[in-house]
Parts: sequence; C-alpha cells; structure tokens
Amino acid sequence: MPESPALLPALPQERPADCTGALLTDLYELTMLQAYFARGMNGTSAFEFFVRKLPAERNFLLAAGLEQVLAYLEGLRLAPAELDWLAASGRFTREFVDSLADLRFTGEVDAMPEGTVFFADEPILRIVAPLREAQFVESRVMNLLHYQTMVASKAARVALAAPDALLVDFGLRRAHGAEAGLLSARAAYLGGFTGTATVEAARRFGIPMYGTMAHSFVQAHASEAEAFERFALSQPGNVVLLIDTYDTERGARLVVELAPRLAARGITIQGVRLDSGDLAAHARRVRAILDAGGLPGTTLFASGNLDEYRIAALRAAGAPIDGYGVGTRMNTSADAPYLDCAYKLQEYEGRPCRKRSEGKATWPGRKQVYRYFDAAGELSRDLLTLADRPEPARGLLVPAMRGGRRVAPPPSLTQSRLLARHALTQLSAPLRSLEPAPPPFVEVSRSLRRLADEVDEATVAA
Amino acid sequence: MPESPALLPALPQERPADCTGALLTDLYELTMLQAYFARGMNGTSAFEFFVRKLPAERNFLLAAGLEQVLAYLEGLRLAPAELDWLAASGRFTREFVDSLADLRFTGEVDAMPEGTVFFADEPILRIVAPLREAQFVESRVMNLLHYQTMVASKAARVALAAPDALLVDFGLRRAHGAEAGLLSARAAYLGGFTGTATVEAARRFGIPMYGTMAHSFVQAHASEAEAFERFALSQPGNVVLLIDTYDTERGARLVVELAPRLAARGITIQGVRLDSGDLAAHARRVRAILDAGGLPGTTLFASGNLDEYRIAALRAAGAPIDGYGVGTRMNTSADAPYLDCAYKLQEYEGRPCRKRSEGKATWPGRKQVYRYFDAAGELSRDLLTLADRPEPARGLLVPAMRGGRRVAPPPSLTQSRLLARHALTQLSAPLRSLEPAPPPFVEVSRSLRRLADEVDEATVAA
Repeated sequence: MPESPALLPALPQERPADCTGALLTDLYELTMLQAYFARGMNGTSAFEFFVRKLPAERNFLLAAGLEQVLAYLEGLRLAPAELDWLAASGRFTREFVDSLADLRFTGEVDAMPEGTVFFADEPILRIVAPLREAQFVESRVMNLLHYQTMVASKAARVALAAPDALLVDFGLRRAHGAEAGLLSARAAYLGGFTGTATVEAARRFGIPMYGTMAHSFVQAHASEAEAFERFALSQPGNVVLLIDTYDTERGARLVVELAPRLAARGITIQGVRLDSGDLAAHARRVRAILDAGGLPGTTLFASGNLDEYRIAALRAAGAPIDGYGVGTRMNTSADAPYLDCAYKLQEYEGRPCRKRSEGKATWPGRKQVYRYFDAAGELSRDLLTLADRPEPARGLLVPAMRGGRRVAPPPSLTQSRLLARHALTQLSAPLRSLEPAPPPFVEVSRSLRRLADEVDEATVAA
Repeated sequence: MPESPALLPALPQERPADCTGALLTDLYELTMLQAYFARGMNGTSAFEFFVRKLPAERNFLLAAGLEQVLAYLEGLRLAPAELDWLAASGRFTREFVDSLADLRFTGEVDAMPEGTVFFADEPILRIVAPLREAQFVESRVMNLLHYQTMVASKAARVALAAPDALLVDFGLRRAHGAEAGLLSARAAYLGGFTGTATVEAARRFGIPMYGTMAHSFVQAHASEAEAFERFALSQPGNVVLLIDTYDTERGARLVVELAPRLAARGITIQGVRLDSGDLAAHARRVRAILDAGGLPGTTLFASGNLDEYRIAALRAAGAPIDGYGVGTRMNTSADAPYLDCAYKLQEYEGRPCRKRSEGKATWPGRKQVYRYFDAAGELSRDLLTLADRPEPARGLLVPAMRGGRRVAPPPSLTQSRLLARHALTQLSAPLRSLEPAPPPFVEVSRSLRRLADEVDEATVAA
C-alpha cells in the first residue's frame, strides 16, 4: 500500500486532541489546592512519574507522550466560564476560585526523551514547580504519559515481531475515544509502525497514511468484479483490493482476471487485503493464484484481530504476507490495557519525602537514571540515584522546560521514532523477544537507599 | 463522601470531548467516497452497528454513546482547512474534495435508547442515509458507541456487585486519553455509579462529583496529623481523610484523636479512605478503631485496583466498607478491553446485502429486535427479525433522527441511568451474577434466515 505520495509536514504545533479545558482533572486536586491556598502553602515541590511494575507481558517500556504534556503545561489556564462553574458548584470559596485565575505552569520539567526505553521504578518525567502547579497538573499529565507510553511499548513489540513488514495502525474505531484514536496513531508510529489509517492523525502529526476499501464497498456494488474495477479506476495510484467479502480465493481470481484490463489502462494492482479466516492458509493460496496469474508483484496485506503474537505465528508458519493492519489489540494494548504508573511527590521545600503505603512505597528525592552498556553496546544495567550525585555518564532525564517554557523546539516525530528504533537495538535478544524475560539490573544507589531510611525515621518521629 | 451540595445542570448540550474535526476518520472512507463520487453513486443505504460476540466475561451489554453519536451527526461538516489539506495530500481529485464541502448528515437514525440491555448480533443503531453520508461516519460512530457501551457494561457489573455502596469513578488518570476520561465518567454513571472524581465530566454531564485528598497532601506537611487537620478546616463540609500514606491503623488513630477537636468547631469527619494493602483486614481494624474512638458514623471508603471481582470478594469477606473508588479496571474495561463490534452495510438501494467472510457473516436487511418476558417479568427471549415485519410488541430500536435532526430532545442522563437500572432488574439472577452464564435465547426469525439465503444465492450468481 503506497503511502501519501508527498509527505506533508505536521501541523505547526502538536497539540493534544482535546479541547476539554483545564477542568479535565480530579476533584481532589482542587480540594487540596484550596487547603494549600488557605495556608498560603505553595513551596517548591518535585513530583516524578514512573511505572511501579511492568506488566508480565512487557520486557521494556518506551517513553512517549512528553510532547503532549509540554503543550498542555504551556497552555494551562482556567477560562472564566470554568472559574464561574467552580464558584457555583458550592465546593470552594470565592477567594480560592479567584486565585486560580492566574494559575499558569511556571516550573521545570526534566524528562526522558520520547522513544527512550525504560524499566520499573525509573522516573521518566520530573516536574519541579510551586506546589499548586505541580499538584494541579497531576491527572492530565498521567493521562497523557500513560496512554502513549503503553501504546508505543506495544507497537514496538509488533515492530520487533515483523521488522521488515509494512505495519499500519487500523485502530481508530475501537480505540477508547477520539484522543485515543489520534494519540495511538502517533505512539504506534513512534514505536515503529509505518503509518496509520487515521486521517486526522496523518494531518496533525505528519504520519504517513494508508487506506484501502471496506466490505461495504464491495456489497454496495452489484458484483465484486465491478466493485474492484471501479475502485481501481478511481484510485489508480492506490489499488489495494479487499478480497474476502464473499470468498477469498474467488476474490483473488477476480483480481487476476481484472489485472490485464487495468494494465491496458496503465493501472497496476498493488496489493490485496485478507481480513478473515485462516490468514496463513489463505495467504498461501492467494499468493499461488496471483503468481500463477502473472501478478508476482502484487503484495498481500492482512488484517483482523492481529497483534504481535499472531503476526509472529503467521511468520513462523511462512505465510507470504507483506504487511499488516493492526488495530484494536494494539490501540487498547489488549493484553495489558494499563500500566501501574504513579506521579508522586518526592520532595517538598527541599525536604525529601515518600509514601510508604504497603506495596506502593516510593524512592524519595529528585532522581536520575544512568545507563551502562557492555562491550558489544548492549544495555547491561541502569543506575537509579539522586539527581545531584555526579556520575561518569549522561543522565537519561534531560531538561525539557525551564520557567514554564520549552528549552528547545520539539524534536520531530521522525527523530523520536529513530531514537526508539536505536534504543531497541541496544536491548538483549531476550528482552526484544515476545517471551517474558527478566529486565536488566536496575541498581538503586546506596545514597538513595540511605535517604529512604532517613526519610522514614523522620516520618516516624513526626 | 458527600457529593456536590447543589447539583448543577449539565452544560446545555452534551458534546463529545474532542474538537478533532471531521477528519477523525479512516482513510478508506474517503477513498471509497471518491470512487462513489466518480460514478455518482449515492443511493440510500442502511448500515447497522452490532456486537458479533460478547466477551466471555460479559453476560449482557448496556447500550451507551447514542447521545454523542447524534451530536456528532448533527454537527458533521468539513472545515475549509480540512478540505484544503485533503486536496494538498495528493490522494484525491479537486472535484471530489470540493464535493465534500456540503457533506452533512441528512439521514435517519433508529437506535436502542441508552441504558438498554442487549446481546450478540442485535443491532443497537441503524443509519439510513445517502451512501456517502452513511459510509463517511462509520469510524467515529463506532469509536463513540464502542467505548461507552463497553464501559457502561462493565460499570453495571460493578453496581450489581455492590448495589448499596457509594461507587465513584476514579479512572481519569489511566483512561485512554482525554475523551475516554470524560466519556467513561458518563458511561459509569449511566451504568449505575454514584458519581465521578473527574471535574470536567461533572461540569459537562451534570454528574455528582466526589473527591478527597492524595498522598502528596499528607507528604507535603510536616506531619500526618497536621495534614488531616488543615484539610478538615479547609473543607469542613467534605472531610474524607486518606489514612494509608504511612500506616493505615496509625492514620485511623490520628483520626480518632482529631475528631473531638474538630467537633468542637462543628466539623464532622465524614469518612476515611484506604488505598493499599489487605483492604478487608485494614477495614475491619480501622472500623474497630473508629468505633472504639466514638466515631461509628465515620464511613470507610476503599480504592486501589478495584473491580467487580475484588469488590465482591471484599463483601463476601464481610469487609465493613461503605464505598468504593473504582478506576483503571473499569475505565479500560481491563478484563475485556474491547468489543467485537461492527458497522455493516445491510441494504443498498433497497437490495439487502451481507458479507460472508469466514466467522464474520452478518444478517442482511434492516432489522428490529423484540423482547419477550416471562410471567415474572424476567427477560425470556429476544427475536431478531426484519424491521418491516409486524410483531405484537414494541421494537427495541426506536426513531432517534429523521432528516438529520433529532426527533426529540435528548433524555437526561438520569433518565438513561434509570432505564439501565430497570433493564438490569429484568435479567435473570445468573445473568446478573459475575459468573459467566448463557445469554437468553436470541431467536433469528424465519423470514430473516430466508432472506440471508436469497442474498447468498444472488451474490453467487453475480
């Protein structure tokens, strides 16, 4: 399937899909802010976003969503109608609501660039800001980082399972809402997909777009042959025909019959799509029919409830399939539809802190992650330590915002995609496989362990 | 947890959360439309949305999302910038792109009202419109119906597992994007939840909102006792304290110590929240501490990776918990994160049609669903038949739009919620339980089976 012939640039700024406004947040952010306001409590706080534990089905995660987080932080402000509604809700004092009118994000963000591989307990984003700002943004920051990270990580597995195949995101219809449809196209491309079927994602993010036809197109015509011919004449540069509406092999034979008539008009049938039944068996039979019919260059594209496991099985079975449309199971990350992520206060007014809730304890203080490689260039271990301890390596979290403004223009999505591709090459073969493998050793530094003990002692004494 | 004291009306019109525009669609909708345009092919077509097969974990589904679909259809139009982008993409002829400028939805919608229970193969929405309109809207109609139906169905299970408990949607942070956060709050409320923590959902849909505090609030203070007191003084009408930041039972004892001081100022501690560890064991110990401390009226609210299974287990264990915050697992429908749904052409220009793809065959023609009850008022069987066959019962699909306009103002969300509640009472006990149970008998009428045979014969002949 040919992509859009001339790749268009993305819209000037990558923005989140919503126009939901600043009240897309949890009520408790506001109840806490009111209590802080009552005491004039607004000291510098450091929050970090991390994943507590990887799903059993994931050997690594791929950081994604930072660009949308930065755009959200840059644009943060409550509209007059939102403030009025809060006041009218009867939950807040007028003074507090008025104080929100000048709420802006003025703080610092340090983060792993999108496309960075990471593991459990490693912060991928740190926000340092006055308390009300850093607290208020919690819900949406998590909402944005969680989803794209989850999908990019899933997409990377699909790409690792079929490194040379055309991989197209097909998942808008069963993605969880509009923004999921858009952002999963972005995250999938970042994770290694070739493109998307979602037009608005192509427009907004500059992602190559792909599309064929639906069964309804065949059904709306009096015959399948007529449908194929009309589609080809209308889209002479993009002829990929869906051949399983009634009978896949019959569809393939119709394609062979049609090809010479189209060739006489200078039109090539680039591919056929299979969407049902035993895809490996159909692919072999269709390939044979096309080859025997003089169409060895016509590619096979498969879709229908695919994911990395099914694609790996198809490839293991030697199915002659050139490309895959992957939708629902990727866009919903169906085998692991959420990550156990958190956004936690690690320092307030210079005082490191942590929660100790059972099974949910966190490492205190501002942290940094250093990555070490073996002689072959393969990731050998990560070090989680305090951000102010010098290490003979570059930390994975780098400055993204200072004073509420980006420190640099955003990298292009293509750059982030290349970064992800490179990061995957640094993983060991077991980590890159679909089988569960133990993650690389994430060492927690001695200074960090000591700090955790000190924080606990201080908390008990309080 | 008290809800917003004065319940505010929803915003004038329930709109989808996105401002994503009309290009939130699959590319193939446009390639097909161009082929139709080239031939002037725009006859009346009937598409139906249905679920092919219920997930093994669901005994029934609850229809939801219709209001957002109708709003989408009413507002459908391509903006000049979108048309320009399509033209510049090089994929379409200028004539075709220009023809999209007047694309509006002018057709008919018949649908099951939101809150209706349904089963596999039963259409919950039928669109009858000129082909280009009915085809173009496919992706977004599916995207909207699929997600809310999935979440409402999951929420109904939670509500059935804890019919008398306070149930609050806590899932914004791990919902799949902004719109999922908003629409899952709506779908959860429709399915039986008491309210949501998501402020914008409360504002937009008039849903009661609930919220307490985060661990960061406790951590930001020098001591837990100080944090509790300050929160109570700031929110005297909404004192629910999170007690597990350091040690749950210690937190409960702090609450007992604090209560008399607050009572002296006329403030009552309404509840405490547990968020980690063995919730049943903690709840029993905390209940005992509060009761012994003279706080029998202080309620227990639990959260942390809950779903209907865990809530049922807590209740079976006799845990004295009054309310639950349910997030991630509901908003992502984690045990069944997608439905096998479809939007299929069933009739074109008066000619019934169907696809016969293996495992994905559909029933042709415009259909209706009739529901029959036994003497006790319990659902005994459904009949799936052609819409034009008279039956001595009222069909479940009723007119929603004619000529592209709603036939009636939307029901309130409260009305739809009551409808759902009533529908659940009509299910047998096995269907209402969390255990998998065979669905009621969905009878396919003889006329429909005969039509399917006729359509197949005509297709083979073509």
